[in-house]
Amino acid sequence: MTLAMQAPGAMANGFDAATAGDLPDEMQQLIARRARVLGPAYRLFYREPLHIVRGKGVWLEDAQGRRYLDLYNNVASVGHAHPAVLDAIDRQARQLNTHTRYLHETILDCAEAILGTMPEALANIMFTCTGSEANDLALRVAWHRTGAKGVIVTTNAYHGVTSVVSEISPSLGAGVPRGDHVRIVPAPQGAGDVGAAFAAGVEAAIADLQASGHGVAALICDTIFSSDGVYADPPGFLADAVAAVRAAGGLFIADEVQPGFARTGAAMWGFQRHGLVPDIVTMGKPMGNGQPVAAMAIQPDVLADFGAKARYFNTFGGSPVACAAALAVLGVIRDEGLMENSATLGAYLADGLRGIAKTSAILGDVRGAGLFVGVDVETDGQPDGPLAARLVSDLRDRGVLISATGPDGNVLKIRPPLCIGRAEIDHFLAVIAPLVTS
Amino acid sequence: MTLAMQAPGAMANGFDAATAGDLPDEMQQLIARRARVLGPAYRLFYREPLHIVRGKGVWLEDAQGRRYLDLYNNVASVGHAHPAVLDAIDRQARQLNTHTRYLHETILDCAEAILGTMPEALANIMFTCTGSEANDLALRVAWHRTGAKGVIVTTNAYHGVTSVVSEISPSLGAGVPRGDHVRIVPAPQGAGDVGAAFAAGVEAAIADLQASGHGVAALICDTIFSSDGVYADPPGFLADAVAAVRAAGGLFIADEVQPGFARTGAAMWGFQRHGLVPDIVTMGKPMGNGQPVAAMAIQPDVLADFGAKARYFNTFGGSPVACAAALAVLGVIRDEGLMENSATLGAYLADGLRGIAKTSAILGDVRGAGLFVGVDVETDGQPDGPLAARLVSDLRDRGVLISATGPDGNVLKIRPPLCIGRAEIDHFLAVIAPLVTS
Repeated sequence: MTLAMQAPGAMANGFDAATAGDLPDEMQQLIARRARVLGPAYRLFYREPLHIVRGKGVWLEDAQGRRYLDLYNNVASVGHAHPAVLDAIDRQARQLNTHTRYLHETILDCAEAILGTMPEALANIMFTCTGSEANDLALRVAWHRTGAKGVIVTTNAYHGVTSVVSEISPSLGAGVPRGDHVRIVPAPQGAGDVGAAFAAGVEAAIADLQASGHGVAALICDTIFSSDGVYADPPGFLADAVAAVRAAGGLFIADEVQPGFARTGAAMWGFQRHGLVPDIVTMGKPMGNGQPVAAMAIQPDVLADFGAKARYFNTFGGSPVACAAALAVLGVIRDEGLMENSATLGAYLADGLRGIAKTSAILGDVRGAGLFVGVDVETDGQPDGPLAARLVSDLRDRGVLISATGPDGNVLKIRPPLCIGRAEIDHFLAVIAPLVTS
Repeated sequence: MTLAMQAPGAMANGFDAATAGDLPDEMQQLIARRARVLGPAYRLFYREPLHIVRGKGVWLEDAQGRRYLDLYNNVASVGHAHPAVLDAIDRQARQLNTHTRYLHETILDCAEAILGTMPEALANIMFTCTGSEANDLALRVAWHRTGAKGVIVTTNAYHGVTSVVSEISPSLGAGVPRGDHVRIVPAPQGAGDVGAAFAAGVEAAIADLQASGHGVAALICDTIFSSDGVYADPPGFLADAVAAVRAAGGLFIADEVQPGFARTGAAMWGFQRHGLVPDIVTMGKPMGNGQPVAAMAIQPDVLADFGAKARYFNTFGGSPVACAAALAVLGVIRDEGLMENSATLGAYLADGLRGIAKTSAILGDVRGAGLFVGVDVETDGQPDGPLAARLVSDLRDRGVLISATGPDGNVLKIRPPLCIGRAEIDHFLAVIAPLVTS
């Protein structure tokens, strides 16, 4: 199996700079400029990187005018360059863009609209610019509220890039330090009682954190477990683990940066599929369809003492323009029926892939919720990350963009804008089928 | 003096919610909505908050149509709603807004343009969304590079709101934990050899960090010391302290979120006034004139090992739209001669205030660089924060917006958009003069 493993912490679907010499001159020059000014920490996607210059709806276009069907980008969740969102941003920006130390109605309209999609107990919201900042703030509040330090995350979790959030993101690999206070548990997956198995892992982590003196501040989960390999079923599998964390005095933080904003088709938020009311909910990526805006929703009693002692100001967070963008996105999701589209077209996509997988030697389990679908790529029934990477790049060469995820990098990550139609999914199925069947 | 002190960590110029009952109904309702949905951690400015609905150039307008001369906001640094910046944002947003895992020329043009304003040694740049994220990343790199943990900051420093950055921001007050690894030194100020006194404080902090086993990772300074009370002179006062930190194996991080982008009039960056080449430079607020964009510039050898081991991806950081905004801001600064305007009008403003201070019993020292001016407010020669707060709110009631800063909250903070003209400064001087002389 050694040959079929990616290096621990390596990025699935990353471009290998050692192969740059095979690329067209123009691309080599851009890559060289990047290395020179951006340094070594940046990564590109695909065997042959993409030089994208235009986007509209579910389509991207490269510098040579070639079009790509985008089945990957969840930031432009209501479609690239959606005019209703861009008009709202531009209109507000030409009128006013300041900060939260003046009164402004748009932040309140936006706050009420978002909280209105959540259980009543989640009655406060604070705005940041990125999901990383929202998770960072959630940790600050959890530490303050519980007086404990321990955080429980899943095996290949990704929660962001600030210092304390990178420490709870094992998917970043061994080069990024993990805190002493972090415990890692297997993601909810596999055969048998998934919820009981997940809870058992969490209970062991709780015991270990208590024995070590860290105590339990929080369990934080991306409620679709995207970097772990996309795990969504059966709904409810989080309940026992969350109860155990609460019994130990810890909080449950639902990281909705990936599953939020109708992505799963079943609800606006991933935690709702699991019938939970989190203590804290974080959100980001699709919230402004590309305009930087993110937030943390929270139960008021969890926030109260932190809020009284630690004032919070985020210069761009909750600005009139950020909130105008978020309001416009919510409006488009509602007006265009995108949650329903995610449910319907997501099922259509998964069914189509299951049909292909039946006759494929390399496609295994197809799973997910709504328009977030994961597909195992295997050789002889074992995870094969390098094969998944080749397949992803073969698709790119044929004008279809997806990526790969999971600790072995072997899970196809298919996550198109929510406005995708049946014809585009048919196109994708027609392109992938011959690549995975013989 | 007790009566003339603000509570430690209290926000200068903060609205006191206990007085909300005195406000107009419409404002009370907005404040109640804020408290209900945003919770207790948010703050408003002024004795009577402002409900701003429009901005253009150096003027803001409230919901009643009343205009305010903005001498405070440094985010809209080239002027509120500058059409060149908004056009660049809208044009790019309608074409494409994705992320850094595709090739795109705008991020490279922007990176090269910013690095082109800096000493050659600062040859790499990484993009974030906020100054907090930039400082957070700078700390991650500094800890990785040095293997040490200790950070030295000034008495009332503010560097942002992520967990690790809030720990090095004593201005947030006692309600926000400060790390064991943080040492606080007096800001460079006062009579005598300012640089030698500052270096002595830093050397004592170095010795203490070494004795405690933390070692020295970095000295981080806002190079205009805005939250400490605005200290800019004499140029060069940082050199000895920086040399001591480097001799101890630590880095010098210049936090240019406040003084950067031509604010000081003398140079594009505050550190340039002091003749230094930092190891790391962070920037934010005015960089996109309101569009969220921030960055960390760094010497490549300082970044190399971190970048090789820890890949970095910031979903919105360095997006085509963010970089189009930053490029447009640089273009406006150049095309409209805003650095020169900052130097000329900043001197004109400071001279005017010095003239008034001569006949004022309450205005003391006037200092700063370019269009960042601080003025001490005193009673019997002692700092008087509450008096400064009243003066700031009296000015607001007369249609002029400034704020206050410093550990005692007694330093007027005057920091208008860089495009301000002589007539507006004359207007401000005419409004403030009768309030401070009798």
